[in-house]
Amino acid sequence: MNKHALFHKSDSIYSFALAPDTAELRLRAAKGDILYVHVIYGPKHEFCMHRKTAPMSVSASDGLFDYFTVRLILDDKRLAYIFLLTDTEGNKYYYSEDGLTQNYDFSLAFYNFFQLAYINENDVLPCCEWLSRAVVYQIFVDRFYHGEHENSDDSHINIKWGQKPTAKSFAGGNLDGIAQKLDYICDLGVNTIYLTPIFTSKSNHKYDISDYYNVDKYFGGNAAFERLMTACKARGMRVILDAVFNHCSENIKEFIDVREKGKGSPYYDWFVIYGDKPTKRPLNYEVFASCDYMPKWNTANPEVQEYLCRVGEYWIKEYGIDGWRLDVSDEVSHEFWRKFRHRIKALGSDKVLIGENWHDSASYLNGDQFDSIMNYAFTKAMLDYFARGTLSAQGLCDRLNSLLMRNMTQVNHMMLNLLDSHDTHRFFTECGRDENILLNALAVELFMPGAAMIYYGTELPLEGGYDPDSRRCFDWDNDGAFFQKVKQLVKYKKLRALTEGDAVFREQNGAIVIERIADGQKVTLIVNNSDSAVVVADNAVKPFSYSVIVE
Amino acid sequence: MNKHALFHKSDSIYSFALAPDTAELRLRAAKGDILYVHVIYGPKHEFCMHRKTAPMSVSASDGLFDYFTVRLILDDKRLAYIFLLTDTEGNKYYYSEDGLTQNYDFSLAFYNFFQLAYINENDVLPCCEWLSRAVVYQIFVDRFYHGEHENSDDSHINIKWGQKPTAKSFAGGNLDGIAQKLDYICDLGVNTIYLTPIFTSKSNHKYDISDYYNVDKYFGGNAAFERLMTACKARGMRVILDAVFNHCSENIKEFIDVREKGKGSPYYDWFVIYGDKPTKRPLNYEVFASCDYMPKWNTANPEVQEYLCRVGEYWIKEYGIDGWRLDVSDEVSHEFWRKFRHRIKALGSDKVLIGENWHDSASYLNGDQFDSIMNYAFTKAMLDYFARGTLSAQGLCDRLNSLLMRNMTQVNHMMLNLLDSHDTHRFFTECGRDENILLNALAVELFMPGAAMIYYGTELPLEGGYDPDSRRCFDWDNDGAFFQKVKQLVKYKKLRALTEGDAVFREQNGAIVIERIADGQKVTLIVNNSDSAVVVADNAVKPFSYSVIVE
Repeated sequence: MNKHALFHKSDSIYSFALAPDTAELRLRAAKGDILYVHVIYGPKHEFCMHRKTAPMSVSASDGLFDYFTVRLILDDKRLAYIFLLTDTEGNKYYYSEDGLTQNYDFSLAFYNFFQLAYINENDVLPCCEWLSRAVVYQIFVDRFYHGEHENSDDSHINIKWGQKPTAKSFAGGNLDGIAQKLDYICDLGVNTIYLTPIFTSKSNHKYDISDYYNVDKYFGGNAAFERLMTACKARGMRVILDAVFNHCSENIKEFIDVREKGKGSPYYDWFVIYGDKPTKRPLNYEVFASCDYMPKWNTANPEVQEYLCRVGEYWIKEYGIDGWRLDVSDEVSHEFWRKFRHRIKALGSDKVLIGENWHDSASYLNGDQFDSIMNYAFTKAMLDYFARGTLSAQGLCDRLNSLLMRNMTQVNHMMLNLLDSHDTHRFFTECGRDENILLNALAVELFMPGAAMIYYGTELPLEGGYDPDSRRCFDWDNDGAFFQKVKQLVKYKKLRALTEGDAVFREQNGAIVIERIADGQKVTLIVNNSDSAVVVADNAVKPFSYSVIVE
Repeated sequence: MNKHALFHKSDSIYSFALAPDTAELRLRAAKGDILYVHVIYGPKHEFCMHRKTAPMSVSASDGLFDYFTVRLILDDKRLAYIFLLTDTEGNKYYYSEDGLTQNYDFSLAFYNFFQLAYINENDVLPCCEWLSRAVVYQIFVDRFYHGEHENSDDSHINIKWGQKPTAKSFAGGNLDGIAQKLDYICDLGVNTIYLTPIFTSKSNHKYDISDYYNVDKYFGGNAAFERLMTACKARGMRVILDAVFNHCSENIKEFIDVREKGKGSPYYDWFVIYGDKPTKRPLNYEVFASCDYMPKWNTANPEVQEYLCRVGEYWIKEYGIDGWRLDVSDEVSHEFWRKFRHRIKALGSDKVLIGENWHDSASYLNGDQFDSIMNYAFTKAMLDYFARGTLSAQGLCDRLNSLLMRNMTQVNHMMLNLLDSHDTHRFFTECGRDENILLNALAVELFMPGAAMIYYGTELPLEGGYDPDSRRCFDWDNDGAFFQKVKQLVKYKKLRALTEGDAVFREQNGAIVIERIADGQKVTLIVNNSDSAVVVADNAVKPFSYSVIVE
């Protein structure tokens, strides 16, 4: 047995509460090393005397590891446990905080058992049901649709609709445009829209906000947003906005005041400035990336924390949005996010918080900060297989299984999965503008636990390289043929197995097979991304296509 | 190379800030597998273009793993990095979030580098200097010393001083007694006292508190505590009190009200009750362990959170205590502890919070909850080697190195290390009442990074089995011979290397060798716990004794 491969940790992604009376435990071992794993468990204060045993089963495997899992319904909220492992030769070992041992002294167990010491209700991360069922349409507002309205102001438009955008282009997309195209969006099967920033800003992307309380006038102002919200609510659609709380625009009044008064400004400590006044050459204040026009908020300052919390609350209380996507969230302080979560969840446990974290984000996903993140690790895996060919079908399955083991189960079910966004090349372009490959990739995305995000125009499909090319104008004259194919796929997201079920990814005959199972329903996706037909369990799947079996 | 052994995680105990401009990175690999590890690092937003390289070195080894460590002083608060590994055959590999690879595409690094995304000052856990230098004397108040005072009330005393205590014994120890013996305590080299609970309670241990604002009258009341605090401050001694916030006494007025009024009581939700009223048979409310007289606080209730936060603040603001030891802290909600930390640290960053967590407590030690915990895993390792013989000298070194790798470096330096407490058998009894072995163990404890806790009477030494036997009366008639030996040991704690230095534990010729190094000072402890002399680097150490070399 490879002892080095064994891993478990109390009160972590290996040991967490799914509900106040339900614990999920995971044990990692080298692939194929262990025949059986049993958990020996009981109430913490009685563990020396009384214990139960339950078998664990492999819920995921990747290239290196098997992950044994069990869910325990508990009579007592205090769980102590150790593991009993049987290797392939029939040898038995105990695994506790003291590691692997041949014997185990239960009379001293209080020193070294694993534990969920007590499941306190307020520490349990609930799964937001609507998010687990969400098909999210991400809209880069300036490029989606130009809607007319009596007060609309088009004076900023500097390219013709459809012309290739530059970093400075304004094409005229606005909120009334989105409202007018909601039926189109709904028809695709989408139930949630997520808008890139809409607040007052000089740029087309609006990630440099100068007024958090007013929608940009060229987007139609707050009145247009109200119209959009009304239209969304009428259709039962959810709305997520982009919270840019890492940084703002240098044109925000607080930063202007600091530029003028330096340390004499009451807002001096709202930013991180190394000197009496902010200067650009040399740049002496913290900014986003190397953008001197985007000063970083000092989220260690309680005044800034309060200011941003109020912004977060305002758009929920006044307009009824359903949650926030949190821009550059991994560079903002944990302490701030904890406060922010507290304030936002007080307005409704179904108000969601989705971080823009591109990396393994366990430290943000313990239940005290975000519900989930944009799943860029999923994006990377999909690119490696579908676009770059650096992963095999088996490799992709391994990677996806491994990603599921990065987070708690309820986080997986709220994850915002995506193939691309305004911050990447378009997936369609990455996979050689092959519609069949894009469709196969979308199928995998739809079958991944969590919300499925579709970047506007994917259903045409739109092409595009890196920013600004990935932000092209929507083509409203397209024939709609691919739209129908995407729509067909999106329908599966209504199946309960796809929203609640556990997921297993495996390779079979060169195909990717994804099984989702819940309450007796089993839905299987077979994706054949090769140039020859494959047969999986009597189902023949043509080259570069997929098949869904509902049982 | 054993790929399964490799481990690293962004923003975790493997990747954390020591200061706003300093990061510590750790990489785990199978012992002896890797010849060199280099970290390739740079500012996050430039990592695709510019990078530096720094070597890492093995800072700790245990039975299975080598832990490679590096500390980086950063120009930019945003750190991206991957590792370059050279195995014993000279093969080179990259290690990133995508695992071990032979090649690495830096142009796609933004998808899979490791990172400390941005070191926000408010997320950095500072090391509390006084705690890292602390020698803490734990006093079970009823058994230390009976001090006389004009208002003292002795009516509760039901055993003679020195008589073996039962669970219901009151021997008469009180706060004036401690104040009167402070010179004795100081003389041992102790600079901090930690008192088991002192607030109003029916029991001798007082873990069932019925009034958090009043010191128990038999202990002398608040006036006696004020006298004790004055005496401590005059000697520069710190004082830690016991915060029993998991549960209280059934005699607290809030629980009495619930017992009377059931759901009609405004305090009904302050507890966790399954029914209209609390009943003992069947027990229908949450309690500590199975003690029906100790109802558990519902720390999910904001009113309870506020109540307990105010108690925590009160004794700091009104009496100037230096921190809290947190009873049964692992069963109290994380959310409460986060609020509590916020409130307490607002009164002074040097007010310390030490959890009573017996297990791996990474989820409490990220900087948002406790500063450290009572290090019972250390206790267990010491028992296994010194008392039970189930660990070899090498095994103990492995275990201690492994424990240091459980937490951030600054947590290690605040850890409350202990051989025993009111909740265990006395170490002296565990090791067969052998003074030399106890002294050897104390030497190891003093050389362990963090605070060293000495349970009252260890310096006599007192003997005792499990509660109540481990809570015997202090013997004031002893000859003081062992006291002098302990005092001699405690003096080493004043050396800078012992409070600030990194620690390495290794076995040599059957002895335990501990090196502590800081600022050019090296202090080495050689512990020989065998019955024959050993020689380590020209130092002969007699059987069952220790030697300290200061260089």
